[in-house]
Amino acid sequence: MTSFHPIDRRGIREPDPALLSINTATLWESCNLHRAAEAIRRHGIRGIAPWRDRVAEAGLRDAARIVRDNGLVVTGLCRGGMFPAAGRKERRAAIDDNLRAVDEAATLEARCLVIVAGGLPPGSKDLAGARHMVRDGLGEILHYGRSAGVPVAVEPLHPMYCADRACINTLGQALDLCDELDHSASGAVGVAVDVYHVWWDPQLQRQIERAGEKRLLAFHMCDWLVPTRDLLLDRGMMGDGVIDIPQIRGWMEAAGYRGMHEVEILSASHWWKKDPDEVLSTCRIRHQTAS
Amino acid sequence: MTSFHPIDRRGIREPDPALLSINTATLWESCNLHRAAEAIRRHGIRGIAPWRDRVAEAGLRDAARIVRDNGLVVTGLCRGGMFPAAGRKERRAAIDDNLRAVDEAATLEARCLVIVAGGLPPGSKDLAGARHMVRDGLGEILHYGRSAGVPVAVEPLHPMYCADRACINTLGQALDLCDELDHSASGAVGVAVDVYHVWWDPQLQRQIERAGEKRLLAFHMCDWLVPTRDLLLDRGMMGDGVIDIPQIRGWMEAAGYRGMHEVEILSASHWWKKDPDEVLSTCRIRHQTAS
Repeated sequence: MTSFHPIDRRGIREPDPALLSINTATLWESCNLHRAAEAIRRHGIRGIAPWRDRVAEAGLRDAARIVRDNGLVVTGLCRGGMFPAAGRKERRAAIDDNLRAVDEAATLEARCLVIVAGGLPPGSKDLAGARHMVRDGLGEILHYGRSAGVPVAVEPLHPMYCADRACINTLGQALDLCDELDHSASGAVGVAVDVYHVWWDPQLQRQIERAGEKRLLAFHMCDWLVPTRDLLLDRGMMGDGVIDIPQIRGWMEAAGYRGMHEVEILSASHWWKKDPDEVLSTCRIRHQTAS
Repeated sequence: MTSFHPIDRRGIREPDPALLSINTATLWESCNLHRAAEAIRRHGIRGIAPWRDRVAEAGLRDAARIVRDNGLVVTGLCRGGMFPAAGRKERRAAIDDNLRAVDEAATLEARCLVIVAGGLPPGSKDLAGARHMVRDGLGEILHYGRSAGVPVAVEPLHPMYCADRACINTLGQALDLCDELDHSASGAVGVAVDVYHVWWDPQLQRQIERAGEKRLLAFHMCDWLVPTRDLLLDRGMMGDGVIDIPQIRGWMEAAGYRGMHEVEILSASHWWKKDPDEVLSTCRIRHQTAS
């Protein structure tokens, strides 16, 4: 499959290998932050995107040192968000946690704080209400992020996560939120585009154009497998599925995106079982041949 | 969960019990067409939506007789579509099969032929190309459907089926197709709205309004379970999940929809294992209390 759509056929340039970044979720079961950062550096990869629990495990100061010592750029901190909750107290706690996430992202000099909105509060069917809570929560953290120099990147998640993970499900919807919260496009809020979540969207190209350079804060990659055996943990390596990743990257670049290409593969039964060196060397190859 | 959002709180009328219809997929493992139709009638339900393989199994003439003898309305025939294919020959075969489906729907006096578009041809990542094949395929059958008195109902499927079942994934996209193929809104083509596929869509209300009475050809119901354990066969009974079905029905009615409410539950490990009488009496109750 990986050579089925050669990148060069449509005038899309091969990706610069220096733009590869690895989200630590790709090495979930095999590596703590220290091991992940060392392995990533050893493979000549320049970027990392840690999850907050991996940072907490290492300790924030040590995490920042580990990243620095390995010469890595932090393409994003995963993740803030999860705003909707049944009561005021829980909603306030979520906002406070997001403010802490901004601080962590600032300490790590992350390019952005990735936001996964959150789904419906337990027992609720009020989707419009959950979406208002996301808007209000984002509104409460934007100013803090701006003053800390940490842009907030709303990541629309695939509609199959609407109930339990994120009720922001299309790029257009995420950009409507950006327009509402930051209509001058100050750069305080933008979007993270993960091909896994948005590849199906008939409006994808148009919405990437609409976002433009200012709001395209991150680009995440993996692949959609056929069949997909689990809603969360059966994502594929680039080239093993059906997503035309070079096409989407081409749209991002045409819109002005110059950031890194972050590999985030949640794969409980396949890639998480592999040796991290095999995972990372495959990521490097597939970045060139299938992304 | 079922009484969490009482129907009457927001001024949405209780559904008319006479509008309930049962898609035979809800009784997949327990009933052939004859048993399904008899059970449906026995429970005082007035509509049925058979799948084509159940019709073929009974024989088309006998299927029509079974439906008639049980006094049932056929709310839709499932299904035509599946247009994208790698070669011209396969695409032609798909169109021919759709023309046969129109004939079957006409014989059954079905209110519409439900169209599931089809996904990517094997080995392809050309999503735009697949969508063009759907448009072209639909274009080839509309005229035939019109002359047979069978409206064609494009059912947008949840984006998680984009790769392998249907590359028409939002109501807006389906309506764009309708506009392109039948801009005078003759009634030859419209949409089937299944809450399972569209409940997450931030544009849902707007697109239902846009569709209007002429293009709203069918309304399908089940529920989104949390967690969902299988992408295809883990759908829930109305009231057991998170979809605000009365809200969506209310939008349909406000837009002029007066058709039936068809229950289609693909549930391999739960409802398919139950006695059909238990399934149908639960459908009747949940139609009133949670739809």
